[in-house]
Amino acid sequence: MLEGGGTQMISTSNLDALFHPQSIAMIGASNQRNKWGYRILSNIVLGRYEGRIFPINPSEQHICGLNVYPSILDVPEPVDMALIVVPVPAVSRVIDECLAKGVRAAILITAGFGEIGPEGRLMEAELARRARRGGMIFTGPNCNGIISTPNHLYAMMLTTFPKFAQGGSVSMVTQSGNIGLSMLTRGVQNRVGFSKYVSSGNEACLRTEELIEYFGEDPESRVILTYIEGVKDGRRLFEACRRVGPKKPILLFKSGKTKGGAGAAQSHTGSIAGSNEIFDALCRQTGVIRCGQLDEMFDLAAAFQRQPLPRGPRVGIITSGGGWGVLTSDACEARGLEVGALSAETIGELDRRLPAWWSRNNPIDLVAGTGNRYELFKDCIDLLFGRDEVDAIILSGIGSTLLEQAQEGYVLNETEKQMIAVETTLADLIADAIARYRRPIIPQTDLNAHANPAENPLFKRLNDMGIMVLPDPERAAAVLGAMHRRHRYLERLA
Amino acid sequence: MLEGGGTQMISTSNLDALFHPQSIAMIGASNQRNKWGYRILSNIVLGRYEGRIFPINPSEQHICGLNVYPSILDVPEPVDMALIVVPVPAVSRVIDECLAKGVRAAILITAGFGEIGPEGRLMEAELARRARRGGMIFTGPNCNGIISTPNHLYAMMLTTFPKFAQGGSVSMVTQSGNIGLSMLTRGVQNRVGFSKYVSSGNEACLRTEELIEYFGEDPESRVILTYIEGVKDGRRLFEACRRVGPKKPILLFKSGKTKGGAGAAQSHTGSIAGSNEIFDALCRQTGVIRCGQLDEMFDLAAAFQRQPLPRGPRVGIITSGGGWGVLTSDACEARGLEVGALSAETIGELDRRLPAWWSRNNPIDLVAGTGNRYELFKDCIDLLFGRDEVDAIILSGIGSTLLEQAQEGYVLNETEKQMIAVETTLADLIADAIARYRRPIIPQTDLNAHANPAENPLFKRLNDMGIMVLPDPERAAAVLGAMHRRHRYLERLA
Repeated sequence: MLEGGGTQMISTSNLDALFHPQSIAMIGASNQRNKWGYRILSNIVLGRYEGRIFPINPSEQHICGLNVYPSILDVPEPVDMALIVVPVPAVSRVIDECLAKGVRAAILITAGFGEIGPEGRLMEAELARRARRGGMIFTGPNCNGIISTPNHLYAMMLTTFPKFAQGGSVSMVTQSGNIGLSMLTRGVQNRVGFSKYVSSGNEACLRTEELIEYFGEDPESRVILTYIEGVKDGRRLFEACRRVGPKKPILLFKSGKTKGGAGAAQSHTGSIAGSNEIFDALCRQTGVIRCGQLDEMFDLAAAFQRQPLPRGPRVGIITSGGGWGVLTSDACEARGLEVGALSAETIGELDRRLPAWWSRNNPIDLVAGTGNRYELFKDCIDLLFGRDEVDAIILSGIGSTLLEQAQEGYVLNETEKQMIAVETTLADLIADAIARYRRPIIPQTDLNAHANPAENPLFKRLNDMGIMVLPDPERAAAVLGAMHRRHRYLERLA
Repeated sequence: MLEGGGTQMISTSNLDALFHPQSIAMIGASNQRNKWGYRILSNIVLGRYEGRIFPINPSEQHICGLNVYPSILDVPEPVDMALIVVPVPAVSRVIDECLAKGVRAAILITAGFGEIGPEGRLMEAELARRARRGGMIFTGPNCNGIISTPNHLYAMMLTTFPKFAQGGSVSMVTQSGNIGLSMLTRGVQNRVGFSKYVSSGNEACLRTEELIEYFGEDPESRVILTYIEGVKDGRRLFEACRRVGPKKPILLFKSGKTKGGAGAAQSHTGSIAGSNEIFDALCRQTGVIRCGQLDEMFDLAAAFQRQPLPRGPRVGIITSGGGWGVLTSDACEARGLEVGALSAETIGELDRRLPAWWSRNNPIDLVAGTGNRYELFKDCIDLLFGRDEVDAIILSGIGSTLLEQAQEGYVLNETEKQMIAVETTLADLIADAIARYRRPIIPQTDLNAHANPAENPLFKRLNDMGIMVLPDPERAAAVLGAMHRRHRYLERLA
């Protein structure tokens, strides 16, 4: 049983109805292509949602090929979940009708409540009380929908159908629909799969803390993301994080840190930002990972979903460019990782494989000109992990054979094609080594210098295997730093 | 007159010979396509360098259609500049031959000197002494070449010809060729033009500090970038920055900040990293902008080249997504900028143009659904700048009409095509407002969520006009923060 934002207790079955409804009513459905009542509905249909869908509109007969009902009360079957896009003045009546129909969960898209001012806050609080009392929860108002990939449910405000290529085990609750959309879209680009997504908007009823608890118990959710502008029940959030934190990584982005940001948050979702220091303390005490940038939150989601945790702070850096080795060392040490010396024996082994002028230590600089001999990468990984020299490896500067080829109009010759084919085998080598040694290998390259990284065969292959290529040394080190801290946190608990 | 790393004085005419040579000898030229002696030479030829080129190789007749000479001493004409790619043991003799020929400047690509150990350091120091004494300078050893766009000179180690689309006014000296290449390639992608580029490698002879001085006097260089792993003459660097800083922005990236990074730097370019705190002090005292990330360095290069400085800390944020407004406010205030309230009069003017539920303050949230009415952006900019409400504007979340269209296989309908055409006009609106108000406007959007931003018509158009789109709020705020600090620095000097 969960205690919600209203006065009544709700059951997790309400949230089950949100994510796994057998039937949905779309209240405010429309045939006008530029209206959310059309777009959201068509997204649900195109997403191949397998349950029943009932569009509600008093003056239409068919929308998206479906029968339309004048009111939810006219639907001849039970309705588990309702999507509401009607204008503000109609919302109260619609909520009552949903309650009368026995709906267990709703998505209140409509904006114009608490984010406008005190009157709107009173209105939405009253709606929440009434809903909870009647055994219903809702997310929003002022939100952009939900996604539940196990159920093919894409109930999202999007202008076109989102090709969310694959389901996965990342689940997110976000107070900003745009920030959430940013994470979802990155997921599509980088093949990081989501299980569930909730835009919680003003959180009049359903709140971040409840969803974190739910995701904590949900076997389909393995990594939890949350974007927070303000919290209504800090104690409850703390308790939720304390319970879930040991089980699953929680990645939290809290905005409204500054005076200006807090003001903006209030007019965005009606949130009271609260003290930044208290948030830091909450994160420290519960093992929550507080992200400072959206990039970081996404990078970590990808890494926690795919890579094993490092069992210590020792990082080996293998690079085909000396400058990158220097930057990566700096970035690792700034995050509490160690780029330590290698044993004399390992250096001796490497001496037998690398040209005389290699760096003879960590970072292992494969030196310009040898960077394409990919068996060297394999030898280095096997030596570093096999001899337990390091807990994690960053492969820096990979995939650059194609860097300049991407220049328009250039035609590859046979040698170059061969080089690229060899280069691409590195992807399987990395995946294999991660599995064999159960240690993380973070591929990193200067993505910003690639004209079209999405077309690079090596990056594509890594992408297919769910291994994200980090675009610069800072972000690669940030990933390993956070994974290392997670490992230490779990060790302390054990 | 410049005092160099050797014992002798050299004249700026040596550097003129490096960047504007009438003739070049390529010593170690080759017909083998995988050798630098071929690649660098072919880059010079393909780059349409207009001076004379003399390939040197004792056993070839023709390379790239040019006559080959057995030794530089056999060249029947004067040689201004020499490129050297011969193996380590031959370098000393080649330097002597260059001196005998009266060469004024050389590029010593060959690696295997100071970065290997003490013996190599002695060797390269001796070469530098001999060169300076003979009136010659050289960059390197262990470097990847130079570029001088006014002279179409692309003397670079690259596997294929680089299409450096345009010249410009950014000049760079870098101790890491890879980091330099990263900046150059970003320049190509983002149409940020370079004037001069020098990879200084181990800096046995020609040093960062001399090049900063030279760029300071060079009318073609307006923004100076430098990547430093270690400094041989800190006092000289300080003096160079003190002299040049008031005239031109110097963007400095110093690595080797941590113990691991410093060790890596030593085996990379033989650099002694020096104290991180001393570097910070140097930057503070000379107005040098120390960049913490490569992204930042590039973003600032683009901004300083194209945007006017803000004359104060006040930022107006115009966004089509509330969450972005919150993040941008946070990011601005964290950098000492102010996201202040708007005057009642301006709010009144905006009330007349925006829907009732707009945020009614700064950030100006144009609200989902109105984001494509681009005349609203114009109205907002005119009100904010025209009524002197702010010193700079961040336009957040632009160009997202195409965000989901980029999904493969989606066909635009007429309405959508129309929306995109309207959206694209924003580029000219921004360029026009920057010119009219002489205040910076930073366009920002969630580039990481775009499948193919390079194909977005709005971003392309901005790119064509040299206006860089920043990919997230942090980077947009970092640009304005640094520009604001630059303005304050210049004010204090005046």
